[in-house]
Amino acid sequence: MQHYLDHAATTPLRPEAREAWLAASETVGNASSTHGAGQDARRLLEDSRERAAAVLGCDPIEVVFTSGGTESINLALQGLWHARRAGTEAIVMPDAEHHATMDTVEALVAEGAVLRAVPVFRTAAIDVDAFAAQLPGSALATALIANNEAGTINDAQALASSAAVAQVPMHFDAVSALGHVPLSFRALRGDAADAVGLVAMSVAGHKIGAPVGVGALVTSRTAKLAAILRGGAQQRGLRAGTQDVAGAAAFAVALELAEVERQAESTRLSAMRDRLIEGILARVPTAEVLGDPVERLPGNAHVLFPGAVGESLLFLLDMAGIAASTGSACQAGVAEPSHVVMAMGRSEQDARSVLRFSLGRTSTDADVDAVVASIADAYSRASGSGSATRS
Amino acid sequence: MQHYLDHAATTPLRPEAREAWLAASETVGNASSTHGAGQDARRLLEDSRERAAAVLGCDPIEVVFTSGGTESINLALQGLWHARRAGTEAIVMPDAEHHATMDTVEALVAEGAVLRAVPVFRTAAIDVDAFAAQLPGSALATALIANNEAGTINDAQALASSAAVAQVPMHFDAVSALGHVPLSFRALRGDAADAVGLVAMSVAGHKIGAPVGVGALVTSRTAKLAAILRGGAQQRGLRAGTQDVAGAAAFAVALELAEVERQAESTRLSAMRDRLIEGILARVPTAEVLGDPVERLPGNAHVLFPGAVGESLLFLLDMAGIAASTGSACQAGVAEPSHVVMAMGRSEQDARSVLRFSLGRTSTDADVDAVVASIADAYSRASGSGSATRS
Repeated sequence: MQHYLDHAATTPLRPEAREAWLAASETVGNASSTHGAGQDARRLLEDSRERAAAVLGCDPIEVVFTSGGTESINLALQGLWHARRAGTEAIVMPDAEHHATMDTVEALVAEGAVLRAVPVFRTAAIDVDAFAAQLPGSALATALIANNEAGTINDAQALASSAAVAQVPMHFDAVSALGHVPLSFRALRGDAADAVGLVAMSVAGHKIGAPVGVGALVTSRTAKLAAILRGGAQQRGLRAGTQDVAGAAAFAVALELAEVERQAESTRLSAMRDRLIEGILARVPTAEVLGDPVERLPGNAHVLFPGAVGESLLFLLDMAGIAASTGSACQAGVAEPSHVVMAMGRSEQDARSVLRFSLGRTSTDADVDAVVASIADAYSRASGSGSATRS
Repeated sequence: MQHYLDHAATTPLRPEAREAWLAASETVGNASSTHGAGQDARRLLEDSRERAAAVLGCDPIEVVFTSGGTESINLALQGLWHARRAGTEAIVMPDAEHHATMDTVEALVAEGAVLRAVPVFRTAAIDVDAFAAQLPGSALATALIANNEAGTINDAQALASSAAVAQVPMHFDAVSALGHVPLSFRALRGDAADAVGLVAMSVAGHKIGAPVGVGALVTSRTAKLAAILRGGAQQRGLRAGTQDVAGAAAFAVALELAEVERQAESTRLSAMRDRLIEGILARVPTAEVLGDPVERLPGNAHVLFPGAVGESLLFLLDMAGIAASTGSACQAGVAEPSHVVMAMGRSEQDARSVLRFSLGRTSTDADVDAVVASIADAYSRASGSGSATRS
């Protein structure tokens, strides 16, 4: 694959994260063991936890390492639900969340939860007023900080504040936002650390150049949360299992580097992204950029190609050596239109005609040039198959 | 740490597994993405699944990769419980299982499950007749293939056959057994693949030289199992989340190597283990080897040091550069006597006076010599503190 524009699905491992993983994997010892070898592993693990906490704006004890974003989100939502205040049964969830959230909430609804849905605007931004209006008396609330498909950045501060006011335990899915927007759990939560309100935030390593298979749930000391995985006292009893020291070490390094580079990368990627959008619109004048023109992830271009079948476009670009996506990789291959695009008020047909291009650390001008050079032909051919499909 | 005799807690990463991890981590692409990069990752993942299946004696589709043994066990037990046949509420569990099993079952009991406990013999071997007697009408049953503390190898075939006869869905915790005893899911399950009986088996990578953070649940195609982690259609919908291709590749290599080496290593480790036991008994004549003298893991020595405080012994050996353990690392630091030793009919005092030495791939004669040279002095001093503690 010469041109990889799917960094939102996963992004290459950073060399420094690989080195940290390798160095840590030389440490023999289970971090729960009390002997010297175990304690060496433990020190490395806790050092990684401190470094991760420094970047995420929380205390080290608030970092619960997990196997990734999906586990973090499941732990937050299932955990808050099972530890909810008696008499509360509603879950507040916007319409354009990731499937890890949607599917978990669906399972909780089967257990008796009542969904309070919150609409998103045509930009995919969560309607903060509608969100706040649904909160009172709810068991928990959840929201994306940045939409993983449209790239739209929500007003996280306003969402968290509304949860604090309503005294409802809240979770942020920060998987897509991590490394791209300023992210401080402490700042979002506000001063009242003991109060109910923002209590959990999910992040994943492989979206910022750490290995796949490591993530974290940031969760307040006072959060009432039930574990999903049981069997040991590791990590405050919230996540049993032998701790992945090498994964944590690599994640900490990736977090630090992503934060150091964030502003410069944001500028670089935004410029490339804008050039990509201009190039696409010049070659395909009927194309339309979705999402918010300003409050969007730097590397994200979410583009509607009217009348084209997204899967066909994807295939044709792939033949030209270009990797993009129609939406969440977790749903790739699933023959359903994007619920995110439909929540943005678009038709089912439109929801099948959208591509997400996502740039990242290794993206170059050549990647943009390749898309611009190929898109008109691909669109022309995919529209043909689109018409055929619709007939 | 010069002398590491805690391979049951975790064992060093195999160089070949590290190389496989490194090579796979160069593959950019989410295995769920439909473009070429994603499909490259997918091929590597499915190749790893096939290789793992070949070693584990199952079909590739029956391998569900997880983040490790604890997740596998939780998925099996929670999953079977939540998908249980209406009207069944009992869980059959022997008394000397790992805490991942015990704690999960405890949580299910809080949800309405009824525990049917099965005693173990003084050797820690599960009483197969008692197990079989508890099965009829149960929702599910679980058992260790090899006890992680005592090292005792159960009659897995008899246990699985009894579950098949009773038509009760059964799970094996094979985490400790993996790489040390012949292990074929197909052979244990028998011919009747569609029948209820053995339907799931948990294994973990880091016990055989794969990285921490990868494991698998082998589960029959026809098993009725509910997912714990939701959010995508990955792995038959049983385990959502971006798949850890590098971890799977490393695990597959470690599985193959462990299987190739198994018989020779078994002979080598058994001999070293016997020499270790002889040396300990010569220096500490009151010491007693627990577990089964024949049906035991090759590298395991589970030794009672009467009157000594296990934690003190551990500390003194640690000072001499020797890493051992008092039991499961997942419970290390927890000030409770081993439930396994107590299930073996020993007193609480005895349960605090046991050490587990576990040998593995990198163990040498020097490791054995070091323990033999240090044990008498450590025992003498730990017995003093033991008396002090008991006063």
